[in-house]
Amino acid sequence: MNTERTGGRALAAIFSGHGHPFDLREFPIPAPAQGEILVDVSCSTICGSDLHTWHGRRQEPTPCILGHEIVGRITAFGPGAPRIDLRGEPLTEGDRITWTLAASCGLCFFCRRGLPQKCEHLFKYGHSSIAPGREFSGGFAECCILTPGTGIVKLPESLSDAMAAPANCAVATVAAAFRLAGPIEGTTVAILGCGVLGLTAAAMARALGAAEVIACDLDPHRANPATRFGAGHFCQPANLITDSRSRTNGRGADVTMEFSGSAAAVANAFAATRTGGVSVIAGTTTPGGSITIDPNELVRRMLNIRGLHNYAPQDLVSAVDFLSTSATTFPFHSLGGDGFPLPEITRAFESATSSPGRRVSITP
Amino acid sequence: MNTERTGGRALAAIFSGHGHPFDLREFPIPAPAQGEILVDVSCSTICGSDLHTWHGRRQEPTPCILGHEIVGRITAFGPGAPRIDLRGEPLTEGDRITWTLAASCGLCFFCRRGLPQKCEHLFKYGHSSIAPGREFSGGFAECCILTPGTGIVKLPESLSDAMAAPANCAVATVAAAFRLAGPIEGTTVAILGCGVLGLTAAAMARALGAAEVIACDLDPHRANPATRFGAGHFCQPANLITDSRSRTNGRGADVTMEFSGSAAAVANAFAATRTGGVSVIAGTTTPGGSITIDPNELVRRMLNIRGLHNYAPQDLVSAVDFLSTSATTFPFHSLGGDGFPLPEITRAFESATSSPGRRVSITP
Repeated sequence: MNTERTGGRALAAIFSGHGHPFDLREFPIPAPAQGEILVDVSCSTICGSDLHTWHGRRQEPTPCILGHEIVGRITAFGPGAPRIDLRGEPLTEGDRITWTLAASCGLCFFCRRGLPQKCEHLFKYGHSSIAPGREFSGGFAECCILTPGTGIVKLPESLSDAMAAPANCAVATVAAAFRLAGPIEGTTVAILGCGVLGLTAAAMARALGAAEVIACDLDPHRANPATRFGAGHFCQPANLITDSRSRTNGRGADVTMEFSGSAAAVANAFAATRTGGVSVIAGTTTPGGSITIDPNELVRRMLNIRGLHNYAPQDLVSAVDFLSTSATTFPFHSLGGDGFPLPEITRAFESATSSPGRRVSITP
Repeated sequence: MNTERTGGRALAAIFSGHGHPFDLREFPIPAPAQGEILVDVSCSTICGSDLHTWHGRRQEPTPCILGHEIVGRITAFGPGAPRIDLRGEPLTEGDRITWTLAASCGLCFFCRRGLPQKCEHLFKYGHSSIAPGREFSGGFAECCILTPGTGIVKLPESLSDAMAAPANCAVATVAAAFRLAGPIEGTTVAILGCGVLGLTAAAMARALGAAEVIACDLDPHRANPATRFGAGHFCQPANLITDSRSRTNGRGADVTMEFSGSAAAVANAFAATRTGGVSVIAGTTTPGGSITIDPNELVRRMLNIRGLHNYAPQDLVSAVDFLSTSATTFPFHSLGGDGFPLPEITRAFESATSSPGRRVSITP
C-alpha cells in the first residue's frame, strides 16, 4: 500500500463479537479530515487485551477493528494536522511512526491535570465501533486514521516493526510506572509478575541504574527469563518479603511494582516496600479483588502507593528511547511471536492464545 | 531563669509511669556539651501523646520529662553548636525559638532520603529516659538541652508562646501533609477529623488557596469550629463521598487528608478522592485497625496514597510561617487551654484531659 491508494480501498479485519469469525472487508480509504493523519499500517501486535476481547472476557463496542499496538508510515496529512511529533521533530509523508493508544482532548479537567489517559473525551485505538467512512480506527487493517490529540513518535530505523509495536502499550505503561516511582539509580526494585510488563520493568530498572532488581512470580519457570531481563534475584511470592528485606539490611525494597494482576500480590507489594518507599500498582485492571490493610502500616511506614492505568504521551517517548538503546541489551526478541499476514488474523489470534507472553504480529 | 543559672539548678517534672505522681525535682543545669544548646523553657503545651502516656495508654521509657511542644530562649551554646536556624538566620543568646520534636543524625539511610523522622538514631524530646547529668530532655522543666541534629526556628515576637508551642507538633505535621499533597491552589480538599490537626488543616488549605474545603467529623458539634477554621462545608462520614462528588461535578475531592485516626475513615478518604487525586493518611498511629480495598480501584482511579508520620524540619518552618500570617485570620486562640505554672503540672494534665482539643500550657 502507498499514498496512491488514498482514494482507493483498504482491507480491514472486522470483529463483531466473541464467537463471530473475523470479517475481512475492504473499505474506501478516507481522505484525512481536519487534524487527522492517514497512516499505512506496517505491523500491529496482538495485546493481551485484544485476546481478552476475542475470547469474550472483555466487552468492546462492535463492530470494530481491534489492535492498538501499531507501527506505520504516514501517507497523508489532513488540513491542520500536526507536523511535529512528541519530541518536536518534523513529520512528513513516509515517516515511520507509532502513536499513543489513546487520543485525548488536551482541554478537559483530567488533561489539564496531567492525566490525559483519563480524558473526558478519550478515544482509544482498537476499542471503538466503526461507522461508514470512519472504519480505520484499529491496527488490524491496512491503514489507520490518526485522530487529533494523538501523540506521535517517529521511530528510529534500528528498531524493527515487531519490536516497536508494543512500545505504545506494555513498554509505555512500564515507563509510566517508573515516572511515578521517581529516581531509580542505586535503589532496590522488586517487580511482581514476570509477564511482558514485568520483564520489561526488570530491564528498565536495570537500565535506569537500579542497584538490585528482584523479580517475583508464582511460576518458577519465569526465573530464567527474569534473570535475562536484568533481575539479580528471582523468588516466588511467599518469599518476597523475606528476600526483599534480606537484601536491604532488613528495610525492604525502595520501589515495588505490581504487574501480575493478582490482588494478593498487591498486599505483598505493600509489605515488601521499605518505610518511605513507593509501591506502583498497575496490574489489577479487573474489579472484584480485595485486600485487607492496616492503615497504621501506611502511616508508620509512610508508604507511597500510586495506582497506574495506561500512560501519558511522554511515557511513549521514554518507551521508544528505552527500546532504542536497550532492545539488544536485553532479549526483547524472545518476547516476539510469529508473524501473520492480515488475511490470516484468526490463525494469528490462535497463535497468540497458545503462546502467552509473546507478541504475535500481523503485517498487512 | 536566665544565663546566670547555668551552673545553678533548675526544676523539672519527672514522670515515672502511669499512676505515679509527677515528681518535681531540681537538677544541676548542665553546661551544653559539643553541639548542644541550652534553652530556658518559656512555655510547653500538653500534646495528646503526653496525655496518652500519662493515662497509661502509651508506654515511654521512664523516668522521663514529658513535653515536646516547647518554646524557649537560648541561654548558652556548647562548642560547635549551630549558630543558624533552619532558615539560615543567625542564632544568639536570648533568641526565642522552637525546635523539631526530634533530632536526627543527617547521615543514615533514611536521613539521606528525606525521611529524618525515620532516622536510625532518632532522639525525641519528651520521650527519653533521663540519666544523671542528662535530665533536661523534655518540655516540662525550666530548661532543655537541644541535642545536635535538632532543627531550630527563630520565632517572630508577634506569635505568643502558647500559640507557637504546638507549631512543632500538630501544625508541622499538617504542613508535612500539605507538602505530600502537592499544589493546593484551586483544589477541593476534604479533611477527615476535626480535632486540632483537622482544624489546622482546614485553615491551611484555605490559606494555600483551596477552592473548596470540606470538613468531616462524626461529631456534628464540630461543624461550627470547622467553619470558623475555613471549611466551606461540613458533613458527617456517611455523607462524605456524596458531598465530595456533588461539589466536584461528580469527580470527588482532589485531595483528602485523614487525621481522625479511625480505620474506617481511611477507606472513606480513598473513596472520596477523585481519579488521580491524593489521599494523605496521617491519623492512624495505633495498630490493629483494618480496611478492605479493591486494588482495581487503586489502578483504574490512579489513586495516590501517602502515609505520613511526623514531619521533616522544613515542615516546622512552614508551620511557623503559616501561624505567623494566619494565627489571627483563623481562631487559633480558641484551641488554647488554661495555663499553669510548672509546680501545678498535675492540675494542668487534669485540665487537658477534661478539655480535649485544647492545648493546655505549662509555663515554668
